[in-house]
Amino acid sequence: MRNALAGHGASRGSALGRARVRLPHALEVAEQRIGAREVEPELRRLHQAVDATREEMQRLRARLHGALAKEVGEFLDLHALLLDDPELLQGLDELIRVGRYGADYALRLQRDKLAAVFDQMDDAYLKSRMDDLDHVIGRIHAHLQKRAVDAEGVAGDILVCDNIAPSELAQLQSQGVVGIITLSGSALSHSAILARSLHLPLVVGAAQALQRINDGDAVIVDGGSGEIVVEPNAADLREYRARLRELAREERELGKLRSKPSRTRDGVDISLFANAESLDDVARAHALGAAGLGLYRTEFLFLQRNELPDEDEQFRTYRDVVLGMSGRPVTIRTLDLGADKADRTGLVMDDEDNPALGLRGVRLSLANTGVFDTQLRAILRASAYGKVRILVPMISSREEVLQVKRRIKKVATRLRAEGHEIADQVALGAMIEVPAAAIAMAGFIDAVDFVSIGTNDLVQYLLAADRNHEALGELYSPLHPGVLRLLRHVITIGADAGKPVAMCGEAAGDPRLAKLLLALGLREFSLHPATLLELRKAIRGSDWSALQAQGSKLLQARDRAGIERWLEKNK
Amino acid sequence: MRNALAGHGASRGSALGRARVRLPHALEVAEQRIGAREVEPELRRLHQAVDATREEMQRLRARLHGALAKEVGEFLDLHALLLDDPELLQGLDELIRVGRYGADYALRLQRDKLAAVFDQMDDAYLKSRMDDLDHVIGRIHAHLQKRAVDAEGVAGDILVCDNIAPSELAQLQSQGVVGIITLSGSALSHSAILARSLHLPLVVGAAQALQRINDGDAVIVDGGSGEIVVEPNAADLREYRARLRELAREERELGKLRSKPSRTRDGVDISLFANAESLDDVARAHALGAAGLGLYRTEFLFLQRNELPDEDEQFRTYRDVVLGMSGRPVTIRTLDLGADKADRTGLVMDDEDNPALGLRGVRLSLANTGVFDTQLRAILRASAYGKVRILVPMISSREEVLQVKRRIKKVATRLRAEGHEIADQVALGAMIEVPAAAIAMAGFIDAVDFVSIGTNDLVQYLLAADRNHEALGELYSPLHPGVLRLLRHVITIGADAGKPVAMCGEAAGDPRLAKLLLALGLREFSLHPATLLELRKAIRGSDWSALQAQGSKLLQARDRAGIERWLEKNK
Repeated sequence: MRNALAGHGASRGSALGRARVRLPHALEVAEQRIGAREVEPELRRLHQAVDATREEMQRLRARLHGALAKEVGEFLDLHALLLDDPELLQGLDELIRVGRYGADYALRLQRDKLAAVFDQMDDAYLKSRMDDLDHVIGRIHAHLQKRAVDAEGVAGDILVCDNIAPSELAQLQSQGVVGIITLSGSALSHSAILARSLHLPLVVGAAQALQRINDGDAVIVDGGSGEIVVEPNAADLREYRARLRELAREERELGKLRSKPSRTRDGVDISLFANAESLDDVARAHALGAAGLGLYRTEFLFLQRNELPDEDEQFRTYRDVVLGMSGRPVTIRTLDLGADKADRTGLVMDDEDNPALGLRGVRLSLANTGVFDTQLRAILRASAYGKVRILVPMISSREEVLQVKRRIKKVATRLRAEGHEIADQVALGAMIEVPAAAIAMAGFIDAVDFVSIGTNDLVQYLLAADRNHEALGELYSPLHPGVLRLLRHVITIGADAGKPVAMCGEAAGDPRLAKLLLALGLREFSLHPATLLELRKAIRGSDWSALQAQGSKLLQARDRAGIERWLEKNK
Repeated sequence: MRNALAGHGASRGSALGRARVRLPHALEVAEQRIGAREVEPELRRLHQAVDATREEMQRLRARLHGALAKEVGEFLDLHALLLDDPELLQGLDELIRVGRYGADYALRLQRDKLAAVFDQMDDAYLKSRMDDLDHVIGRIHAHLQKRAVDAEGVAGDILVCDNIAPSELAQLQSQGVVGIITLSGSALSHSAILARSLHLPLVVGAAQALQRINDGDAVIVDGGSGEIVVEPNAADLREYRARLRELAREERELGKLRSKPSRTRDGVDISLFANAESLDDVARAHALGAAGLGLYRTEFLFLQRNELPDEDEQFRTYRDVVLGMSGRPVTIRTLDLGADKADRTGLVMDDEDNPALGLRGVRLSLANTGVFDTQLRAILRASAYGKVRILVPMISSREEVLQVKRRIKKVATRLRAEGHEIADQVALGAMIEVPAAAIAMAGFIDAVDFVSIGTNDLVQYLLAADRNHEALGELYSPLHPGVLRLLRHVITIGADAGKPVAMCGEAAGDPRLAKLLLALGLREFSLHPATLLELRKAIRGSDWSALQAQGSKLLQARDRAGIERWLEKNK
């Protein structure tokens, strides 16, 4: 019998791989009882894990040198102490020997017992020391499970899990995970949008997956149809190869669109810009016929290093990008650090209660004007080499726009006085992602040359829902009547003022949402090169006038179901 | 000569007290150099502080008992180790002996040196161990400064500080702080709004305060005029007593408004409801002639205890409130836990990256339907004793409203089947605080009986600015054109649908904003009883028709300055 189960296809593409089943939580191990004969082997397994943990920590300690060894060594010694604490180890042995529990479950019981003790403590500081214990216990548990700490997937794996957080997807793909199956979730979730932009096959809502798939099973997943085949037979494998050939053919078809215009059936030209942060992205954007870069991110220059990049380093980086786009506009976004993008340079506050509502984007730049001016100088100097535009993140008011303009003017005057060549006009744009700025855009549109809607953050604030928060389910979604109305408002204000309105969030790169955005009147999209051709295809299959006529119906939707019905009808 | 300095009056009231000067940051001590003869005394001072810290930690350790002693003791031992670390202590001695630095400054230098070492470390975990060191160093510093750790203000103090976070105000007042002077800040900040509602005298923008006021000076602060007198003379004290008599007279005048209607000069009746969470609040609200309770908070039933309150406990609590208002409507808000309101019952997730954008309010209730149903049962049973309305926090969509309605209907049917008496109609209202819900309110207004705007959270999300974040300055403010437009939108949609629209955030209780809110068309205010009479006075001094005529001008403001000009003109 064919061993197949069904889910909902959420991100196209087929994959064949080993199933890796991820349990909801590492220490949420179910009660395991063992027989008398298993006691000794289980004790051995535990002690081996403890030994491996100790060795791991010794290796970590050996790697320390200089002043570090002295200061940090003591913390590691403390952990080593905890590891040898008779209370911890004897307790564990007893649970296995007398209680007849498996080592994993014994570890969990002992952990919970200690946590209860810590919980009763009054001193908040001492209470927080449970973290150290959890760290040590987590390392032991990882060794019990014989997996490297933190590794959740490896090359060739198909991850099977309850749900997947948007923040995990890129990392999993870079680890070589070839497909994902989730028990819950929907094809219109933020994770699904991201999976599509990563071309990572994803099947959601496969409720039976945990019962039907074992860790290590060979699995075929089809992110288009939603079909999953466990331990495929010869016929399944034949079909899989045929499907791959079909996908390759589709890919070739798509390739023919490289030199085609992004024009609707009724002749309306839509601008497709690319989002980029590496020279690779730039080359791809150029090759795919992007109208320019709609969003060039500069955070990578500031992350994973201890010193701020100086003006020349930044200048050379920006210049390379400008030259790489050979005359097409390049929109450089000023530093958007803060929130989830922690740095090591000390710029970002690391103790905010709600980083997403904190000192980030232009707020951080205006609080560190030295850093901001250096970046503006580098961007303006690069403007001599092509068409450069400046995009400022997290703008919330007219006052902030004017503050930024004054700085740019001052920096430009200074650069010219120093003899630098810079462009006569460098367009200034505001990211529209703070809801109050979107609502009050009419009050500052005269002060900017263009705007770009950052849907990722805008939606997060509009719905008061952290986009990486798993337990919120699909509360975070652009498919909310309030979101669509505000998008329409922003697009209308821009059009009335004769200023271009682009969109550069994930939603702009999702072919499934293309018609919806066209219906709202959007004419400029900026997206990762990965889905540029798919979006172009969607646009070439659309009728602008017909969609405009459908726009008001879309805005009448009172709930998500109404919006989904519209999407279904206008597929 | 009279020793007076000027700031801006931000919260009326006069106070006389001891100045307690709070430095910007405990370890932000200025460079202190000492003479050769001071070296030995300074070394002694340092060693005494270290000894005192060691004793403090030993006392802490002695207090531990049972299993705690074993597990926690080792952490304390680590700190004792750090305290005796020759690298730390010899370094300090050297800085004092050779560098001729004061002990406080030497401690800071040594701390920064160690922090730099930790900063270079790659392992995020080890890096975070700097916290332990900071903890130890912070304790030493507190002893150097001879103050108890954590004590920031005591009875009779007037706090002098750079700025004050809204979150600190209530605590400071409960500690007995009688007035606050800040170097920066504005009279329209969130902190100022809160200070007014607490009747805590506040002077902001007293830039010279740190230079002119010493810790321990006697100080008179006048939160109305903004005047500060340091070490007052006989004439100053006479004037202060006269001012107190004047304030008492004003208070008596205000008291006469208890039985007066909240009616504008041109005869428009405005409803003033009270916010309450204790029976004291209820009694005050009743005595002041509140139209009812516009917001009765239920969180206190769930906080600071380990078990959830059962149905009967909740029922009796709600019934007492309903009886206390003797027939006037009582709006009971369902549980609004989450975010900053942590609990001990395990309901709230405690590891959210952005709690304000997390599982809170109705989201938490719908994720714990057992808890939600119990609360709904208790509320509905209380409805037999008076006019009860249900208000649901954090509503973001029509779907959520309908989900809540279905639950209420089910619970009501069940209660009737069990023979309980409940009211025929219990009005259901949605808190409007999620921006997307405010924008799309037309899509669900038919499904509710009333709405109440929660400006505290709404403003936070609209501006993407945590309202307790000090470094954001006054980014968090209801005085943003986008906020005002959305408020007007909500009020208009409610009026068009014939559904009452109330406002229950801090802004609704601020007499300085009363005319602005009337100009936007607001007719129902819900506020803490503390400012109810002041608000009634402001309303009785307003002309509804004239303000309606000014409303469109207010909405044309492009920035905060424009709104402040409007406020100034319509004072």
